[in-house]
Amino acid sequence: MSQISAEARIAPTGERTVDGPVTLMNRFAVQPGRDDAFHALWTETSKYFRAQPGFISLRLHRAVAPDAEYRWVNVANWESEAHFRAAHGTDEFRRVVTQPGWEEFPSSPMLFEVITAVGP
Amino acid sequence: MSQISAEARIAPTGERTVDGPVTLMNRFAVQPGRDDAFHALWTETSKYFRAQPGFISLRLHRAVAPDAEYRWVNVANWESEAHFRAAHGTDEFRRVVTQPGWEEFPSSPMLFEVITAVGP
Repeated sequence: MSQISAEARIAPTGERTVDGPVTLMNRFAVQPGRDDAFHALWTETSKYFRAQPGFISLRLHRAVAPDAEYRWVNVANWESEAHFRAAHGTDEFRRVVTQPGWEEFPSSPMLFEVITAVGP
Repeated sequence: MSQISAEARIAPTGERTVDGPVTLMNRFAVQPGRDDAFHALWTETSKYFRAQPGFISLRLHRAVAPDAEYRWVNVANWESEAHFRAAHGTDEFRRVVTQPGWEEFPSSPMLFEVITAVGP
């Protein structure tokens, strides 16, 4: 398997930078039977992000349907896009997302603003 | 534009039914310049789901990047998969998701379990 670059792990930018809160949705392709290996590597890697300024919360989800292309999705909230970008611009970021094992799990990161919220 | 069936608006099932909480992620393709039309139709349609037993909360997101295939994503939490399926099995469900206007906005609904949660 070939290496996946650190750049491929960063959500694309928009025409402007969002001042307020942003939400990352990062989808991961994980082959059947590799859930435990993925979850262990993701958990180790997430420690970096959880310690960065502006990190608020995350939820890691697994699809109910077994045949989804991207069966795992991390949804993470950050205080601002500037915080989010700063966390993705460090040498430590490059190290953790290119560590051995990650080449097995391609991802598709996208950044969002919350437009409507209902409930807790 | 051709009609999109009510079935195409329902997240695929898995090999078993989830007893605990589930999270819907529903991605919508919306052409540039059609955000207001989509948001109005989605808001009207969401009133049905928000009134169903087992609905907990939702957040509707718009992508920061303008060239994403699915620029809008609804993330909604339900008390159980049974509640979620019941809300997608009524005549009223069929009516609201096939009402005029929806043929313009294809969607890709997927159902998930939360595996790891950090923060509020």
